[in-house]
Amino acid sequence: MTAKQTWSQRFESALHPAIARFNASITFDIELLEYDITGSQAHAKMLGHSQIISPEEAEQLVTGLEQVRQEYRQGKFQPGIDAEDVHFAVEKRLTEIVGDVGKKLHTARSRNDQVGTDTRLYLREQIQQIRQHLREFQHVLLDLAEKNIETLIPGYTHLQRAQPLSLAHHLLAYFQMAQRDWERLGDVYKRVNICPLGSGALAGTTFPIDRKYTAQLLNFDSIYANSLDGVSDRDFAIEFLAAASTIMVHLSRLSEEVILWACEEFRFIHLKDSCATGSSIMPQKKNPDVPELVRGKTGRVFGHLQSMLVIMKGLPLAYNKDLQEDKEAIFDSVNTVKSCLQAMTILLREGMEFRQERLAAAVTEDFANATDVADYLAARGVPFREAYNIVGKVVKTSIYAGKLLKDLTLEEWQQVHPSFDSDIYEAISPRQVVAARNSYGGTGFEQVRQAIASAHSQILQG
Amino acid sequence: MTAKQTWSQRFESALHPAIARFNASITFDIELLEYDITGSQAHAKMLGHSQIISPEEAEQLVTGLEQVRQEYRQGKFQPGIDAEDVHFAVEKRLTEIVGDVGKKLHTARSRNDQVGTDTRLYLREQIQQIRQHLREFQHVLLDLAEKNIETLIPGYTHLQRAQPLSLAHHLLAYFQMAQRDWERLGDVYKRVNICPLGSGALAGTTFPIDRKYTAQLLNFDSIYANSLDGVSDRDFAIEFLAAASTIMVHLSRLSEEVILWACEEFRFIHLKDSCATGSSIMPQKKNPDVPELVRGKTGRVFGHLQSMLVIMKGLPLAYNKDLQEDKEAIFDSVNTVKSCLQAMTILLREGMEFRQERLAAAVTEDFANATDVADYLAARGVPFREAYNIVGKVVKTSIYAGKLLKDLTLEEWQQVHPSFDSDIYEAISPRQVVAARNSYGGTGFEQVRQAIASAHSQILQG
Amino acid sequence: MTAKQTWSQRFESALHPAIARFNASITFDIELLEYDITGSQAHAKMLGHSQIISPEEAEQLVTGLEQVRQEYRQGKFQPGIDAEDVHFAVEKRLTEIVGDVGKKLHTARSRNDQVGTDTRLYLREQIQQIRQHLREFQHVLLDLAEKNIETLIPGYTHLQRAQPLSLAHHLLAYFQMAQRDWERLGDVYKRVNICPLGSGALAGTTFPIDRKYTAQLLNFDSIYANSLDGVSDRDFAIEFLAAASTIMVHLSRLSEEVILWACEEFRFIHLKDSCATGSSIMPQKKNPDVPELVRGKTGRVFGHLQSMLVIMKGLPLAYNKDLQEDKEAIFDSVNTVKSCLQAMTILLREGMEFRQERLAAAVTEDFANATDVADYLAARGVPFREAYNIVGKVVKTSIYAGKLLKDLTLEEWQQVHPSFDSDIYEAISPRQVVAARNSYGGTGFEQVRQAIASAHSQILQG
Amino acid sequence: MTAKQTWSQRFESALHPAIARFNASITFDIELLEYDITGSQAHAKMLGHSQIISPEEAEQLVTGLEQVRQEYRQGKFQPGIDAEDVHFAVEKRLTEIVGDVGKKLHTARSRNDQVGTDTRLYLREQIQQIRQHLREFQHVLLDLAEKNIETLIPGYTHLQRAQPLSLAHHLLAYFQMAQRDWERLGDVYKRVNICPLGSGALAGTTFPIDRKYTAQLLNFDSIYANSLDGVSDRDFAIEFLAAASTIMVHLSRLSEEVILWACEEFRFIHLKDSCATGSSIMPQKKNPDVPELVRGKTGRVFGHLQSMLVIMKGLPLAYNKDLQEDKEAIFDSVNTVKSCLQAMTILLREGMEFRQERLAAAVTEDFANATDVADYLAARGVPFREAYNIVGKVVKTSIYAGKLLKDLTLEEWQQVHPSFDSDIYEAISPRQVVAARNSYGGTGFEQVRQAIASAHSQILQG
Repeated sequence: MTAKQTWSQRFESALHPAIARFNASITFDIELLEYDITGSQAHAKMLGHSQIISPEEAEQLVTGLEQVRQEYRQGKFQPGIDAEDVHFAVEKRLTEIVGDVGKKLHTARSRNDQVGTDTRLYLREQIQQIRQHLREFQHVLLDLAEKNIETLIPGYTHLQRAQPLSLAHHLLAYFQMAQRDWERLGDVYKRVNICPLGSGALAGTTFPIDRKYTAQLLNFDSIYANSLDGVSDRDFAIEFLAAASTIMVHLSRLSEEVILWACEEFRFIHLKDSCATGSSIMPQKKNPDVPELVRGKTGRVFGHLQSMLVIMKGLPLAYNKDLQEDKEAIFDSVNTVKSCLQAMTILLREGMEFRQERLAAAVTEDFANATDVADYLAARGVPFREAYNIVGKVVKTSIYAGKLLKDLTLEEWQQVHPSFDSDIYEAISPRQVVAARNSYGGTGFEQVRQAIASAHSQILQG
Repeated sequence: MTAKQTWSQRFESALHPAIARFNASITFDIELLEYDITGSQAHAKMLGHSQIISPEEAEQLVTGLEQVRQEYRQGKFQPGIDAEDVHFAVEKRLTEIVGDVGKKLHTARSRNDQVGTDTRLYLREQIQQIRQHLREFQHVLLDLAEKNIETLIPGYTHLQRAQPLSLAHHLLAYFQMAQRDWERLGDVYKRVNICPLGSGALAGTTFPIDRKYTAQLLNFDSIYANSLDGVSDRDFAIEFLAAASTIMVHLSRLSEEVILWACEEFRFIHLKDSCATGSSIMPQKKNPDVPELVRGKTGRVFGHLQSMLVIMKGLPLAYNKDLQEDKEAIFDSVNTVKSCLQAMTILLREGMEFRQERLAAAVTEDFANATDVADYLAARGVPFREAYNIVGKVVKTSIYAGKLLKDLTLEEWQQVHPSFDSDIYEAISPRQVVAARNSYGGTGFEQVRQAIASAHSQILQG
Repeated sequence: MTAKQTWSQRFESALHPAIARFNASITFDIELLEYDITGSQAHAKMLGHSQIISPEEAEQLVTGLEQVRQEYRQGKFQPGIDAEDVHFAVEKRLTEIVGDVGKKLHTARSRNDQVGTDTRLYLREQIQQIRQHLREFQHVLLDLAEKNIETLIPGYTHLQRAQPLSLAHHLLAYFQMAQRDWERLGDVYKRVNICPLGSGALAGTTFPIDRKYTAQLLNFDSIYANSLDGVSDRDFAIEFLAAASTIMVHLSRLSEEVILWACEEFRFIHLKDSCATGSSIMPQKKNPDVPELVRGKTGRVFGHLQSMLVIMKGLPLAYNKDLQEDKEAIFDSVNTVKSCLQAMTILLREGMEFRQERLAAAVTEDFANATDVADYLAARGVPFREAYNIVGKVVKTSIYAGKLLKDLTLEEWQQVHPSFDSDIYEAISPRQVVAARNSYGGTGFEQVRQAIASAHSQILQG
Repeated sequence: MTAKQTWSQRFESALHPAIARFNASITFDIELLEYDITGSQAHAKMLGHSQIISPEEAEQLVTGLEQVRQEYRQGKFQPGIDAEDVHFAVEKRLTEIVGDVGKKLHTARSRNDQVGTDTRLYLREQIQQIRQHLREFQHVLLDLAEKNIETLIPGYTHLQRAQPLSLAHHLLAYFQMAQRDWERLGDVYKRVNICPLGSGALAGTTFPIDRKYTAQLLNFDSIYANSLDGVSDRDFAIEFLAAASTIMVHLSRLSEEVILWACEEFRFIHLKDSCATGSSIMPQKKNPDVPELVRGKTGRVFGHLQSMLVIMKGLPLAYNKDLQEDKEAIFDSVNTVKSCLQAMTILLREGMEFRQERLAAAVTEDFANATDVADYLAARGVPFREAYNIVGKVVKTSIYAGKLLKDLTLEEWQQVHPSFDSDIYEAISPRQVVAARNSYGGTGFEQVRQAIASAHSQILQG
């Protein structure tokens, strides 16, 4: 590991072994190996295309790099800690394979623009995978929603029962969050898919390169307009990590709800064995580990976002070694988001079942229809704020009397206000309470059906 | 403050005074007052339009609300801590003005969708203001760049001199960052400018409201498709705070550079009295307070982003009181970003001057032209990695000899490698080193001129 | 505001008005005014004591400063934005009062060591106040615990019922957290209560000052051993904010539980009107705003900690203007922690009531006694892991049969394992399940009584 | 991996393979393996000691566990992903070795208290190692300080030259920070070294265990007083991560300074080859990778602290699976802090050299002696603020005249103020400026010598 480094001609003595270990990134940037090869192949082709090297040399480099890729896939090429980083490791192996022409690969390029290119190639692919996972998650939500349009569930604000809902409507709220995540990642993608290659170390290069050609070969949408910016920019990482954090916010909220739904007191769902775990000591336990872990992993992704911001704060232009720290934050966030989306998708699809009777019972046993009484009066001309106050009193006396609203006699209703008539009973039945909220985006069954139809067409977009 | 609250009919006793103080948001959500009035006016018009109240009632509400606005502007209406929040304060004052019809305003609406609407009205306006500030910042950068195309400045990586640059090129890197910030805020805006009004408390409403009509009156691009999502969503706040944090990353980097440029050792700029401060004890001091404060305030905005994420983590649907904590984070971030952009714009425009001679001297006194020697050889057929190694040795021996590269004799050059000829001196002159980096996005003067032209047209877009 | 500043003799032109506003700290550091006066009085006394100024001059300064304090308390002295900061404001007013001798106050001192002293004087007082609030919080927990030793409540892991508990035991867990908070703040205090005064701008001073004398007058435990460290150190702020964040972690956990306990599904507590709020639209609602806000404010304090860390990252020695940003983070965290502790104390003391019957019912309706069956067998020689497996099967078959463990006949028990005898029924009764966990620190009633006794003596310590 | 789990008797079907992977912690908690064995051995001894199992059984368990340890060290026991977690892995292997008695190990214990014990055993050892690293870091600082008492270096505030310093004094500021870190970790240790074993799953146990005995065997200072708190508490992790973040703040500040010192403009140090790296393209580059990486890794540790806080926020008692996420944050922070301390220690010890002539030149070329002129006047009776203003003017006119203060004639001085005499030249010589700051903790040589002596005795303490 303390052998002479690639960059060591200006240097006389070798790195201190502990420092070499400290500096090395190969233990984690190995993840970029195939992206590095792909990027280098495009660079070599461009060098040939621009006659900076001969077409034959370019061809040799491309083929040699392909061999490195195959050796890596077959486990024959396994760069160790002495390789410093994945870029040197690949270049070194290439030169062993193709000989001196390998030393031409790094013409008109620097590790600074190279690693930036690799990271973007990696991240743009991962973003597409995450978007795919989001789509699967949305599909499961939509399937569940379709099956539960007429299933009622208490709706909460402040975790207090507020108004009953169509369960489908509740699930579709998460569908919408995932849709925003999907769209947001699309916007992030625009700023990830820009090619820094050709920025050189910081200032561009003296060689007559063709940056657009390389960018095209690598399917980048555009290229960085300023070389300093090209090598120093990590906005795309921050932006991705913020989008990843937002996905985790959504998953943590759903997780919290699933945990609540699964507890003895709610019992809104039944957790299946395939997605629950036991205790090491309490034989009766069946724990919702999946949503708990997802909720916990939320902190992990927030932490990575914070790390990335801290790393970038106050760094002078252009490249600084601090930037090497971007990779583990990105890699771990990608893996965390993917595995959490996958786990929640499995949980919703096959790991839990809504307990229909329990839900049906829940929506009848509270005062969640009180707003409808106020609306009933308001629709009959009583100013809303007055109606609201009237109903507040009814609720108070009913609680004292140990009665629910549905148990009040018509006489009692009319003592409260003469506008009440026998249709009040229908108006406050849970099913009607839900059905009546037929404003756009509301929980009324008709609206929910339309929302499901729209969701289907949204999902087809990507 | 412990008088009966608006919502207190179901309640028998008043709030504990300390708790009332603890809950109250009026001390900060007063910032939303005019947005609240605007939102309520649109709601009132829609209630009239949809015949939920009479046209005359709608008219009375709109006019009454306008009077509240005027009273507020004139300092006659100053809701205190006993008002709980700005929404109740306005409704209460309205009812004092217009009488019982005021009690109809809250028909088919909840504070949950109301506050969401207000916050979005506020934030979308602020985003446009910040984008305007970004444009001014870009203008100053562009002006400075135009004046300094041929001014050379050392370019750094690892804060070590790397390759000389056109100062314009360096400044344009910040132009590009600001451009991304401007575009990113445009994407954020898309997800801010969606109307939740009509979501009710969480489930929509039983009244035949017309959400599209209200949204149109308020110039929203679209409306929330799901009422639960509409009242629970704070993605727009997270996304704004992440974009604000990214702006601060950029400003902190420029700040760091200005601080470096201003120090005795760099002396690249002269700080003017109008943008510098002194010491309370050291009479000679002239401190770059502006960039230091900007760099410090970066932590503030990162902190708000983190707060917002923490607030949202694991919250069950739909509205929870925790969300009240979103406002101060947003308000303070908006104010911080605006004032930092403004301060940096002033600093660049009139608070500092580049010391031309100092810069000119700086680019001649180091080995920042070494890459050009390697490129020189590579262009003459020596494989780059070999050329790089040869030059590494030359640098080492020159340092020992106390010479710069320009001081080597042709003979010495040719001892290093026979390919060197007398044109090597021109190739390594700072001006040529810069000029030669004429690849797209590079620091070559020709490229910089094109970049400035492009920048002008970019800026015209918004 | 753009008049000549105190430090402006080396300066020719005034500050740009927007920059003056941007730099000014008086809007928030006014909070330090009295601490600044106290610090300056001690400094003046030391100057006299050390014969740097005459005893009469020292006396004049001390008396003049006292007058500034009184004017401030009476609202006669209200420094505005043009005062730049609280230190200059006080010095200026002092000089107006006492004349030229006022100009001697700043001898052998810099704003850098001055503001550091003020901040520590402020924070050490606030820490003691927070510790007092913690004690009150602990008292309420202890009172509640004493009344509920024999009240049973389900104990949870993974929010699944695990084993029943003494409610007192549950509450005492929070007592212990608060105890750690109290002790941790004691450790923080040690590192807050160190005096930087006399560090000068960064290097100490040429005057024969007596730092120990000043420190003694101000009741500091010790003084900074290194002047650079004295003016640059903000560890004490980070450490306080970390301790404050930990308090918020604890309060957020209790808040989450109270929110759960208050919901329809748990109904473990009854929220009283004095600590609950209603909805603007749903007349039946009674919301647990206090714990929700506390939970939300947790993010706020975490954000401030993060801000402070970000501010300090990578700052070269010694003082940098970035440090001005420490104050608002500290002030807001102090106020947040104090108000949250106070609100939760009120909530526990008078804002909620445990529903005894509901709790009593809850502990009988589940399999939370299953571990006791395994322990029963293990105590009779069956290896624990085997016993655990046996009971796992019993639970499974009981669930299918729709029975609880207490409903199994002795015959059924003995079919499971011959070791079961009729005492199994007693062993699995909720009361006995709790009583039997009599290991040190366990929920057994005897243990809980001892724990309460210990808690009483712990609380007397501070 | 989807085979029946240890806890699966109550379960009918196996875990979904993807979920099993998602839940498994063995990939990282393998780090705890030896601590787990140590903890289990103490638990087994206690079970024997308390006659819950026989002495022979206890002996068998202890010996069997020792065999597992040896197998692990020899690479023969390598639990894979199917082991779920390290605790089950060890218990399973133990039972293979010792037979049925292995199934008794988990008597009177739960994974909840077990993992808490393991983590504390790990962390307390790591804290001691980090403290040792801090001591080595302090030793190097002290060595360097001793060699550089009379070496002068410019002192900065706002990165502007303020007053010259003894280099030793500057280095001792970092010594003091490390000293606080060392002491703070000592306080953290107190709250880490408390034993939760015996808390059971959450409520204690029905077995007559002796928690003090186990704690004593494991060298814990005390035991948790409340079982719920014992299994739910992660304060010790937060507190450690906050202390680790503070260490990183200090290292990041030193890193920033080293980076500045190494740059072309400062040239205060010479970086040696053993601790510097080159560029892949620029042959002349020698980069300070070590301090850059340390500065970057600061973000990493801050991120972990934030993660941990987020994980804990709002978790109801007692154990929740979210807590599994604590480990990677702790492990990575421990490794980061250790490697950064080590790298910085090596860098200071053998990777850089101060350029004495460059430093000597630097302290003579500026106005950093201006305060001493003001002090000179103040010592002669001119009120400080007036003296300060007089000197401000002198500095201004000198700058215009292109002169330094030392170049003013005595006549010029006396025109400024009659008090000036010929001893002003000595008073403003850099050496005297430093020497004169002889207040306690100041940079005066005499003070620095005393500070070094104190530092030596401080270091002997631990």
